[in-house]
Amino acid sequence: MAKDFPTREENYSQWYNDLVIKADLAESSAVRGCMVIKPYGYAIWEKMQAALDKMFKDTGHVNAYFPLFIPKSFFSKEASHVEGFAKECAVVTHYRLKNDPNGKGVIVDETAKLEEELIVRPTSETIIWDTYRKWVQSYRDLPLLINQWANVVRWEMRTRLFLRTTEFLWQEGHTAHATKEEAIEETEKILNVYSTFAEEFMSLPVLKGVKSANERFAGAVETYCIEALMQDGKALQAGTSHFLGQNFAKAFDVKFLSKENKLKHVWATSWGVSTRLMGALIMAHSDDKGLVLPPKLAPIQVAIIPIYRKEEQLEQVSKVALDIKAKLETKGISVKFDDRDTYKPGWKFSEYEFKGVPVRLAIGPRDLENGTVEVARRDTLEKELLQLEGIDIKIFNLLEQIQDNLYQKALSFRENNTHVVDSWDEFQDVLENKGGFLLAHWDGTSETEELIKEKTKATIRTIPVDGKQEEGKCVYSGKPSKQRVVFAKAY
Amino acid sequence: MAKDFPTREENYSQWYNDLVIKADLAESSAVRGCMVIKPYGYAIWEKMQAALDKMFKDTGHVNAYFPLFIPKSFFSKEASHVEGFAKECAVVTHYRLKNDPNGKGVIVDETAKLEEELIVRPTSETIIWDTYRKWVQSYRDLPLLINQWANVVRWEMRTRLFLRTTEFLWQEGHTAHATKEEAIEETEKILNVYSTFAEEFMSLPVLKGVKSANERFAGAVETYCIEALMQDGKALQAGTSHFLGQNFAKAFDVKFLSKENKLKHVWATSWGVSTRLMGALIMAHSDDKGLVLPPKLAPIQVAIIPIYRKEEQLEQVSKVALDIKAKLETKGISVKFDDRDTYKPGWKFSEYEFKGVPVRLAIGPRDLENGTVEVARRDTLEKELLQLEGIDIKIFNLLEQIQDNLYQKALSFRENNTHVVDSWDEFQDVLENKGGFLLAHWDGTSETEELIKEKTKATIRTIPVDGKQEEGKCVYSGKPSKQRVVFAKAY
Repeated sequence: MAKDFPTREENYSQWYNDLVIKADLAESSAVRGCMVIKPYGYAIWEKMQAALDKMFKDTGHVNAYFPLFIPKSFFSKEASHVEGFAKECAVVTHYRLKNDPNGKGVIVDETAKLEEELIVRPTSETIIWDTYRKWVQSYRDLPLLINQWANVVRWEMRTRLFLRTTEFLWQEGHTAHATKEEAIEETEKILNVYSTFAEEFMSLPVLKGVKSANERFAGAVETYCIEALMQDGKALQAGTSHFLGQNFAKAFDVKFLSKENKLKHVWATSWGVSTRLMGALIMAHSDDKGLVLPPKLAPIQVAIIPIYRKEEQLEQVSKVALDIKAKLETKGISVKFDDRDTYKPGWKFSEYEFKGVPVRLAIGPRDLENGTVEVARRDTLEKELLQLEGIDIKIFNLLEQIQDNLYQKALSFRENNTHVVDSWDEFQDVLENKGGFLLAHWDGTSETEELIKEKTKATIRTIPVDGKQEEGKCVYSGKPSKQRVVFAKAY
Repeated sequence: MAKDFPTREENYSQWYNDLVIKADLAESSAVRGCMVIKPYGYAIWEKMQAALDKMFKDTGHVNAYFPLFIPKSFFSKEASHVEGFAKECAVVTHYRLKNDPNGKGVIVDETAKLEEELIVRPTSETIIWDTYRKWVQSYRDLPLLINQWANVVRWEMRTRLFLRTTEFLWQEGHTAHATKEEAIEETEKILNVYSTFAEEFMSLPVLKGVKSANERFAGAVETYCIEALMQDGKALQAGTSHFLGQNFAKAFDVKFLSKENKLKHVWATSWGVSTRLMGALIMAHSDDKGLVLPPKLAPIQVAIIPIYRKEEQLEQVSKVALDIKAKLETKGISVKFDDRDTYKPGWKFSEYEFKGVPVRLAIGPRDLENGTVEVARRDTLEKELLQLEGIDIKIFNLLEQIQDNLYQKALSFRENNTHVVDSWDEFQDVLENKGGFLLAHWDGTSETEELIKEKTKATIRTIPVDGKQEEGKCVYSGKPSKQRVVFAKAY
């Protein structure tokens, strides 16, 4: 199955779009901006969910579910939240349809108009803090460490599969604490969960830091983020963790009686990652031959393809193949033995290559004679003949090696595409001709940040949390600066 | 923690409502008819999801995700679907808010009106079959065996937590097949998955059968269902599996080229269970002391409570308790060791009793001397002293015993509340004074069914699939009948 699609060099954007569709990950739906996540793509998302969910639970969080709809008035309660958010939303105004009296299908029943419009949640801080008011009375009720897996809707004008869609799937954590320190600790703990997930499961190195005031979440005191670099030199924000101070507690009047018997407002955090991670995963590792998946997130980790001419050969090969399959499965490896007779081996080889299956095994009659199996790695495209003896351990180790190799490759790429720049000319030149992350001094003002964005489309992706302190001059204004920040064009 | 709530006898309906709220399962939200599923309730739902998801995957199904919104015109495409459905829906008409020029929060931006209104999915047949048209060309593309975990919205006028809410969570399977036989086989296979799940995980015996034409899903050729009996003698439909014939394939023009090279319409099924199962679970087993959960769905299967006066005793008791905990966890049992010093043992005893934790262990200084532990069962409320020796195996077996006992108890209840009735007087008398399932002959007409419903509020819950064939006379009309059907008042 030769897939007809451009190389990254020819047209990176088209390469991505085609890959998503042709690898059966997702497609556009009949509803503008909303995607259908196809079974193969959804299986990857399920693996992401399972890993993240375990990490959340291991750090003391529990899941719950809050309503899809939020009363319109809730959005005006937290001033900066409504300013920065909540404008491009799906608005429910009616609750009934009726038959068209002209016989043309159904129409909205105008008599069934809601008194107050409902907004399809773009994020759930408001409805959740309205609920927390009832749950929190005393310090004994704190902390609340709650996560929700849900769909959210933001009416985006320009959409791209996984990267920016009107409806998307995500998890949103919303925690409530007795002290500022504990809430900040939680925000940072989750940032570490996210970076660990990105690096260990997605094989994706990320920068950790905080956002500038301009890029902060609407309603947050501080927004922490993880930022990754894609193969076209553009940055992608892969997750955010917000310290919300007492903003939502004050807006929704959530107070508790402290140990010292004083009434205080609760401290809050919120944090989320979404199906956008699918876009990051695809763009980080895939190549001109198709998808490349890190083993820990691959729905099929090993594909076994029998090579045969006669039915009798298939039987013999199958016996060995199924034995390997069983051994690998005992080690927790997911295996597909593809003995369909409707497709030829060559077609299957390119199918699994295109779908990013990390390891492909081929076994034919000659292998049976020699006690061997052909092993092909998707990441390096290398093939070798291995002895069957101990094959399960060899494959297990190989999968770990691939997981690590993908990470190292992405890390080298990032290192090679991170540039220290010290003048405005250099900034523009590097951004235009090389792309990637630009480490530059900045005077700390929103004005300068905005001017740079206007002139170059580059934004401050993050201010590294443990960045080196050094005296310098702002790359644009020449004013003094104490730390380099990370600029890039971004998705 | 004495919970103040009525007994089942006093007020069954209030007993249920109070139980749901006081046991921290769910509560009403600020949005009419939409519930908040609290962490303890959600943990039960997660266990249900995990078990069902595994059963679906073991029978060859995969998960995917389709849009939340459905264009209004889609509902008119399948004639009987729109007739029986889709009237009480949440309708999205606008996609933007703006600041109120009078400074009073936000208002709907009237310039951002959708050309075609979007409906928040009440069920997804229409959007999915619109998608399947693109996925199916040849018999090689079939079957499609796809499930989705999602939220859906039906604008209910009278709502009750879990049993009937405006928004609820569910799974909806949508499959496409080359032949009628295969689609019917799928419908029945899923009915068996549902009944196995109800009986093995929920300890809830169910009747399997088909619905009468009146009660059939809008757009289905045949609706299969599982029906359970609650403690107040009312029936609850716990899951449905629909054979849709070619109705949706014709409405959305989904055809395939058969092996014989002929263009044919695809055959369809759809099936679902929802958070309504939570309501069934609560009502089936719980008692006047609170929740009773079958071990397989209990978030905490065993609670261990230390009894002590001095700090030193706590240390000694904790050592033994943590050892038991570790042993139980090795057997896959979830254990909570509650050593909080903010609550007394008596408070903890009633807390775990109220929350339906299947087994409670108490260990005090005297137990340490005697090598014993006090074991209390939630289902029978019995306590006994057991020797510590082999305690993990004893508890493991006890949990199985409780799971089975709850099933047997529910089965006896159903048997004691299933009545064969042969005359109209008897029908009315039994329904009014005893309730439960009424096995009665019916003449097979919708008219009779509706008259019975009008007069008694009883409906035909199911026509047993493997019901005994016998000559009889309709309990209402006296016309001939060949099989008894199951009548009841229902949730």
